[in-house]
Amino acid sequence: MALGRLRLVPAIWRPCGASRRAFGVVPRREPFLFTPGPLTVSGPVKQAMLVDYGSRDKLFLDTVVDVRKSLLSLAGVSKEKGYECVLMQGSGTAAVEAMLGTVPKNAKVLLVINGAYGHRQTALCEYMGIDHEVLAFEDSEPVRVAEVLAALRGKDFTDVSVVHHETTAGVINPLEELVKNVKSEFPTVRVLVDSMSGFGAYPLDMAWGIDFAVSSANKCIEGVPGFAYVICRRDALEKSKGNARSLTMDVYDQWANMEKTGQFRYTPPTHAILAFRQALAEFQQEGGRTARAARYQANYEVLAREMQGMGFEFYVPEACRSYCICTFKTPEHPNFDFQTFYNLLAEQGFVIYPGKMSKGNSFRIGIIGRLFPEDCEQLCLAVRRACGTMKVPLPL
Amino acid sequence: MALGRLRLVPAIWRPCGASRRAFGVVPRREPFLFTPGPLTVSGPVKQAMLVDYGSRDKLFLDTVVDVRKSLLSLAGVSKEKGYECVLMQGSGTAAVEAMLGTVPKNAKVLLVINGAYGHRQTALCEYMGIDHEVLAFEDSEPVRVAEVLAALRGKDFTDVSVVHHETTAGVINPLEELVKNVKSEFPTVRVLVDSMSGFGAYPLDMAWGIDFAVSSANKCIEGVPGFAYVICRRDALEKSKGNARSLTMDVYDQWANMEKTGQFRYTPPTHAILAFRQALAEFQQEGGRTARAARYQANYEVLAREMQGMGFEFYVPEACRSYCICTFKTPEHPNFDFQTFYNLLAEQGFVIYPGKMSKGNSFRIGIIGRLFPEDCEQLCLAVRRACGTMKVPLPL
Repeated sequence: MALGRLRLVPAIWRPCGASRRAFGVVPRREPFLFTPGPLTVSGPVKQAMLVDYGSRDKLFLDTVVDVRKSLLSLAGVSKEKGYECVLMQGSGTAAVEAMLGTVPKNAKVLLVINGAYGHRQTALCEYMGIDHEVLAFEDSEPVRVAEVLAALRGKDFTDVSVVHHETTAGVINPLEELVKNVKSEFPTVRVLVDSMSGFGAYPLDMAWGIDFAVSSANKCIEGVPGFAYVICRRDALEKSKGNARSLTMDVYDQWANMEKTGQFRYTPPTHAILAFRQALAEFQQEGGRTARAARYQANYEVLAREMQGMGFEFYVPEACRSYCICTFKTPEHPNFDFQTFYNLLAEQGFVIYPGKMSKGNSFRIGIIGRLFPEDCEQLCLAVRRACGTMKVPLPL
Repeated sequence: MALGRLRLVPAIWRPCGASRRAFGVVPRREPFLFTPGPLTVSGPVKQAMLVDYGSRDKLFLDTVVDVRKSLLSLAGVSKEKGYECVLMQGSGTAAVEAMLGTVPKNAKVLLVINGAYGHRQTALCEYMGIDHEVLAFEDSEPVRVAEVLAALRGKDFTDVSVVHHETTAGVINPLEELVKNVKSEFPTVRVLVDSMSGFGAYPLDMAWGIDFAVSSANKCIEGVPGFAYVICRRDALEKSKGNARSLTMDVYDQWANMEKTGQFRYTPPTHAILAFRQALAEFQQEGGRTARAARYQANYEVLAREMQGMGFEFYVPEACRSYCICTFKTPEHPNFDFQTFYNLLAEQGFVIYPGKMSKGNSFRIGIIGRLFPEDCEQLCLAVRRACGTMKVPLPL
């Protein structure tokens, strides 16, 4: 009596694994989020939020210690090795702003850009009055290390900032090569990395020579949104004292207070942090970064096989294409209307994302979060049904 | 078989109302938070977070519309009347920084201060390079309107900023009188209000002449922490275009984008916002602000009666004493040690807060959140037991 058993599951919880298939296309109360975030996270991650902890409670402070330590370990370093992890309330963009705000008043930053998140750093520098130059690449290609090095030569740049995994189109940049080459030729130039949607899936080791890196609770670690984090060399952080342009986004001050009192300066999102500890536990249980990456890659392979089988074309060439975010060109068939397509998928319980690429129309499918290859198969079936409803013949 | 029935309640949920008493001093997994926040919130508020919504989903966007509209209504105004509500990711302090960041580059702000949260605005102005002067009162007294008016006379202030309910000691300021008098004598001076722990319990009507007010999800509306909100006159907001010192804290840009697309610019804390919608529904169900205030007042009365009965003294005189946060002077008996007292209460499932007052030692008890008079009675019994354990004779 499988159905009898399923009825015991509260309507807003989705059963896991194979039993999901029993639901078929019965409308779900909660859709699958095939987006770059907020993501579909596990039931236990959300259930970890069913408790109110005081922000000065030992139980909560111990959680914060665990989370900071785990994140450093995931970045290949530790406090003992001279690194720090600072949790920052707010969105991932706030943490990028906080990171850029650590540069001295007389800094000159090279922004290495290949997508919207890189371009956003230009806006951030303009707001904060930070002198900067832009080295821009197409949003479908990775940044090229030789050009970055050439741009740095003979100039007085103090910092170089790059996005690890560009969420815009789903392009993975050669971060290790970039960092090592920059640090080898320009040892005093600080390297700032936005690894929002890369960290936890793609390798990132601070010891390559990264000074500051940021990521968010709500990407590949699969927590809920509400805070982000800065991982950095302690000496670089200490030198940044007094540089911040904002009190709430002062990374040094946030860290110094946390070291002194164990507490946040201002009310932290306690529930989101409890959820994140559970997400980190599940991350370890799954087998760490390599296992997480393998699941995303398996998701990607289903999507690549099925979507290409239907004639959809990737926007990003295979060599630099990410297994976290897939961008597809919008089909040119006159019956294909993106909003209709989006709605038809949403009705079947699958939420995707519009694209925002420079060249032509596109849409995005995020395959991070608590999603499995069988979910990707279901999504592709839903795509096939949506095309049928729109009378778009397949293969395209 | 009452105990048999209680066993059906999952261990991390606390039974409500009278049945709570059946638990006596059996250790709870989740303590009662008698703090200024994060607070104890209702089970259904937390359970509203058991679902993942996409930040562009219609279901989520409708939630945001509902929340913004309800907050305007609670502030006595509406979009039709020319007011706007802007949700801002992050802590309450971030929203205060965002509000102060709306002033023009050539602004001169009078900071009217009677506690730590007012003083924090000095730090915010210094970070942002905003010209300001301070008019400071004691943290145990309210701000005096006549002195505010005198400070404004003959000076070129463009803005005046005040805290509605000072959380530091629990002092309620005469906001209506202050705003009306300022606006009557200085109609072009903008009035900025930090109503973090007042909004939802104490009256606040934008139509008194308030230009910008901020509060947080995690105070008297009893949501979970993760975001705050700015309520403002639309024309004042429109005039602030280009003033922000920070991209992520640009209230105008956040609003303009939300108006255009219905969406947040950067990942919102979707779960905290879903919890807040539930908190608003419960707020309405309870009977709105007056009913909420009546419950807090009933809590306060239990606390005042029982604590004073044991000989504890309030820090704040009754005339300006708040019914949201109570500050007590630390007893002078040699056996009374605050950390021991704190731990003894925590062991019994009650979390209180240390004080941070200017004059002498003190501790704070917050009585906002999903707390009822019977919880306050239990807290006072726990205080009595803690004093017994410390061998502090009562009454003091």
